[in-house]
Amino acid sequence: MDTAKQKALEVARRMHQKHGKAVEDRDGKPTVQNLPPTAIVELIDGFKVSKALFTACKMKVFDLLGNEGPLSTADVARKIGASEGGTGQLLDACAGLGLLDKTEGGYSNTPLATLYLLSDGEYSLHSFIMTQDEVAWPFFSYLDFAVREGTVQAQRALGTAGEDHYQESFYKNREKKLQFMRAMHGHTKVAARHVATAFDLSGFTSACDLGGSTGALAYELARQYPGLKVTVFDLPEVIEDAVLFKPHGPEAGQVSFVPGDFFRDTLPEADLYILSKILHNWPDDKVHQLLSRISRSCKPGGGLLLVEILLDEDKCRPLPALLMSLNMMLLFQGRLRSLSEYRILLQAHGFTDVRAVRTGSILDAVLATRA
Amino acid sequence: MDTAKQKALEVARRMHQKHGKAVEDRDGKPTVQNLPPTAIVELIDGFKVSKALFTACKMKVFDLLGNEGPLSTADVARKIGASEGGTGQLLDACAGLGLLDKTEGGYSNTPLATLYLLSDGEYSLHSFIMTQDEVAWPFFSYLDFAVREGTVQAQRALGTAGEDHYQESFYKNREKKLQFMRAMHGHTKVAARHVATAFDLSGFTSACDLGGSTGALAYELARQYPGLKVTVFDLPEVIEDAVLFKPHGPEAGQVSFVPGDFFRDTLPEADLYILSKILHNWPDDKVHQLLSRISRSCKPGGGLLLVEILLDEDKCRPLPALLMSLNMMLLFQGRLRSLSEYRILLQAHGFTDVRAVRTGSILDAVLATRA
Repeated sequence: MDTAKQKALEVARRMHQKHGKAVEDRDGKPTVQNLPPTAIVELIDGFKVSKALFTACKMKVFDLLGNEGPLSTADVARKIGASEGGTGQLLDACAGLGLLDKTEGGYSNTPLATLYLLSDGEYSLHSFIMTQDEVAWPFFSYLDFAVREGTVQAQRALGTAGEDHYQESFYKNREKKLQFMRAMHGHTKVAARHVATAFDLSGFTSACDLGGSTGALAYELARQYPGLKVTVFDLPEVIEDAVLFKPHGPEAGQVSFVPGDFFRDTLPEADLYILSKILHNWPDDKVHQLLSRISRSCKPGGGLLLVEILLDEDKCRPLPALLMSLNMMLLFQGRLRSLSEYRILLQAHGFTDVRAVRTGSILDAVLATRA
Repeated sequence: MDTAKQKALEVARRMHQKHGKAVEDRDGKPTVQNLPPTAIVELIDGFKVSKALFTACKMKVFDLLGNEGPLSTADVARKIGASEGGTGQLLDACAGLGLLDKTEGGYSNTPLATLYLLSDGEYSLHSFIMTQDEVAWPFFSYLDFAVREGTVQAQRALGTAGEDHYQESFYKNREKKLQFMRAMHGHTKVAARHVATAFDLSGFTSACDLGGSTGALAYELARQYPGLKVTVFDLPEVIEDAVLFKPHGPEAGQVSFVPGDFFRDTLPEADLYILSKILHNWPDDKVHQLLSRISRSCKPGGGLLLVEILLDEDKCRPLPALLMSLNMMLLFQGRLRSLSEYRILLQAHGFTDVRAVRTGSILDAVLATRA
């Protein structure tokens, strides 16, 4: 009873405060009352949110709870070999983020965690998250240097000298390569159905996914379009491990893998070329080189499908595109683009009828036709 | 016309997709369709949001635009001595975050930026943001080590050996000390009115803010309660620079400063003691030491006001409290607490009638009475 009364008094007090505010802010001037600091603190706290997620993933908390949950703080701490105090705070933060349920029986994964955070889930973003933690986080740590100098800060972020080509160094270490492939696989797969069905592609009989890596998008296209044969064209060191990602369904029979470098080697023939998360890696001059090569291979009436997050025409929306663009600038001196920018790039190489679909998922689609 | 038609077709397509979803998810199983990956990507991207804000603050973009805006990308780049490409991406990200307006005339600060992000604004969070960037970010970079080892990672994060007392090292460098004082000043000031009016404190005639730093809360209390005299008690190296934060109004005459260490020196006499953002720095044993000292100084009927973010009783809400708690664990082995936890700590030292008010701002208030 005391608590209820107290709560009522508190509510009354806060209503009173609100009334006081309204009277004082009549002139419309921004004040702490009508524009609360909570909005800024949310932006400030973003990195704490990310790091709590990254750390729980790194320590395989979701895998543990998926296999053995619900578990108490003490059990989780013991099983991940961590301090109980630190583990409790991490678990509570994950609960606050909607990733764990906390009950008297202990902590267990929410559906969101089960779907995306188990390291071996079909739609796992676990490896993607680990590359964000291990690569993107250190690069973002030097955002001020990157903005000032306009260069990729690989030396500061990772201690590697190869400014432009550190991605290649991934491919020299098999574990890193596989993690990167798993990362790209998950990130594509969660949006693949939205991307594959954004346009009606049933008129095409052959497609070539340039830099298509594990085939995540290729297999989904095969599922959606049973008459389509898809060739995945990527570097030999990628292709040699793509078999690890082969699905069991009949769609596997529609997809083949060809090793090569799309800047140097002859491109496989196809009605439809695909560049999924490729163009955002490069500045315009390299994009022109690549589009020019595709344009020469693509027959009139053929298609080119771009898979990217689309920037609005004002280039300051939507937020996920802006953040991905910063990411690409930091890692590769790349950036994301608006539909108008893609149209200009594509039209310069003989592509017309450039259309976009915002899929509502984490990747959008742009389709153009070779004139 | 073409664009409008195209847009309508896209909308129709997406509605169709939505319909398709509803049919397929009838069994209620979490899928990519009914539980989109955008929720996880938002958490992943949090650190990019923070770092864009931090970098714009560090490069004094908001100060520049406050003085000279609107400015074009080229002008901003030239004036902050940065690359045009990097500057453009940073400005667009800030626009996407609601911190800048982008028009044909260039970029200018939004009211939110004007109120909180100018380095010399009355409610500036600029220095607070800089300490988050320079101190909290590196500590969060080692969250996994902190969770595993249960210790403060000062050596890894800052390269300093003093695990428990790195805050003291702030005070040895005057610039760092002033930045920390400005940071705490801003962070307290934006919530000070909510805190000062959370309870009716007009029955008290003297207050002592232990660790009250610049007097941010003391001055607000003086404003709200013209009959109240407030003593700010803090370390000599803090008190010696507190004069820099003295306001011009009549409230300045109600506030005095006394140097001392609240773990060692005699506490000033007062009806009301205040611990604002102090208890979250320490584990329970140190909290007991401090409360015991206050309890001995506080007369029966006297008050103790705690200013903290309150954790819910389940300790996994609200999110800002959880993130602040992680922050305090990383920096000081501290943590935030729930009302029940404060009640237990306070009752052990003779305080009763422990009440809390969630202010709706970034700090809450707990008031207790000395029995």
